[in-house]
Amino acid sequence: MDREKLQRAIILLSGGLDSATLLALVHSRGHDCHALSFNYGQRHKGELAAASRVARAIGVVEHVVIDIDLGQFGNSALTADIDVPKHETVEDIGEGIPVTYVPARNTVFLSLGLAFAESRGARHIFIGVNALDYSGYPDCRPEFIEAFQRVANLGTKAATESGQQISIEAPLVDMTKADIIAMGSGLGVDYSLTTSCYDPIGEYACGRCDACLLRQKGFQENGLEDPIRYKKTGDIPTSTD
Amino acid sequence: MDREKLQRAIILLSGGLDSATLLALVHSRGHDCHALSFNYGQRHKGELAAASRVARAIGVVEHVVIDIDLGQFGNSALTADIDVPKHETVEDIGEGIPVTYVPARNTVFLSLGLAFAESRGARHIFIGVNALDYSGYPDCRPEFIEAFQRVANLGTKAATESGQQISIEAPLVDMTKADIIAMGSGLGVDYSLTTSCYDPIGEYACGRCDACLLRQKGFQENGLEDPIRYKKTGDIPTSTD
Repeated sequence: MDREKLQRAIILLSGGLDSATLLALVHSRGHDCHALSFNYGQRHKGELAAASRVARAIGVVEHVVIDIDLGQFGNSALTADIDVPKHETVEDIGEGIPVTYVPARNTVFLSLGLAFAESRGARHIFIGVNALDYSGYPDCRPEFIEAFQRVANLGTKAATESGQQISIEAPLVDMTKADIIAMGSGLGVDYSLTTSCYDPIGEYACGRCDACLLRQKGFQENGLEDPIRYKKTGDIPTSTD
Repeated sequence: MDREKLQRAIILLSGGLDSATLLALVHSRGHDCHALSFNYGQRHKGELAAASRVARAIGVVEHVVIDIDLGQFGNSALTADIDVPKHETVEDIGEGIPVTYVPARNTVFLSLGLAFAESRGARHIFIGVNALDYSGYPDCRPEFIEAFQRVANLGTKAATESGQQISIEAPLVDMTKADIIAMGSGLGVDYSLTTSCYDPIGEYACGRCDACLLRQKGFQENGLEDPIRYKKTGDIPTSTD
């Protein structure tokens, strides 16, 4: 196995703070980073521009954006005409899996990451899932990642013919949002380039969806100011809703 | 669980003879069939027209075609500018995984099938993989299907929150091509609607790729004539290669 291929890594990059931190971490370990983003019919398509900014700022070998219209299937507040739930504080976020869940999204993303990894001869796929400060999605849990690892081992030519397993790595899975922001700040991540909001109003984050609330809590716990702009801070001249 | 949803099934439909037989089988069991096909950058795009013909002939509730350009990743004779291997007889097909392998294809297809199933409230996904008369692809083996079942159990809201597991079923996996054709003939499948060739010349199958050779062997073993047209039978007025 040549060293170059060992070093090649696929990073699933959404443009949010978790995946930006992940990219900075993987980059700091000396990997050649191949970033993969998805134009999947999400209402917060602005995250793709954020992903490009982050990829450029941190440094990648390539940044591939795949079109896969999960909106064709519907049934999620992120891809269909269903309201994104809003709350006043993070404590108000309900139990259970919310309507922002996109059916089988991380299975789809990892499967395309696997195709990309095998095509590039990469031996690592990094995904920024997190099972502590998260929205309760089943496909963010460590047991899901382990199950997908087995699929990768059995379903690829690389692993079955050449013994070159592709490892699925989720280094943020057990970290709190505050831990992630602390680590990323240490790595020099510019969080002003990122976006987390499920339901942005133009350039502004809504400040009240689960993603905004969890993000804000993470910055607060670090005693840091979140550098992005929120609608509820009153810095929007005119409101559209 | 209402009976209607129990009956709903997703069928991955390529337009080849295996998936046509699969659809006929699932339909004969009384399922409401939701067919899913993929426009993935394959050179044999004519299979999508075949999939439509088959879906119409057998009867489906809906037939969804998803665009997912696996050609963006390259690295396969089916999606990139790499020659499809040709042989004179089925015995000449080599050992090992051929260059027609598309990285992680069935993982991608099953993941999208899973998203579709969850969106539709379907409890079954049928895939026409076959591990006897096949091209040696790792993602056609029973152990791969079992591994993906675990991903489906852990990675969906349906299974984790409501206990509604989505079963991944591959009823053709241990059948020979001859067995599949015999069963399909009994179910009334019109194989003239299907296509198997990896490298067709217009309306004609090449007759020499792995898929053509395995198909022809299956018909011969049943003492049946394959109703599609092959280039090597000499029934093409002008050749382009």
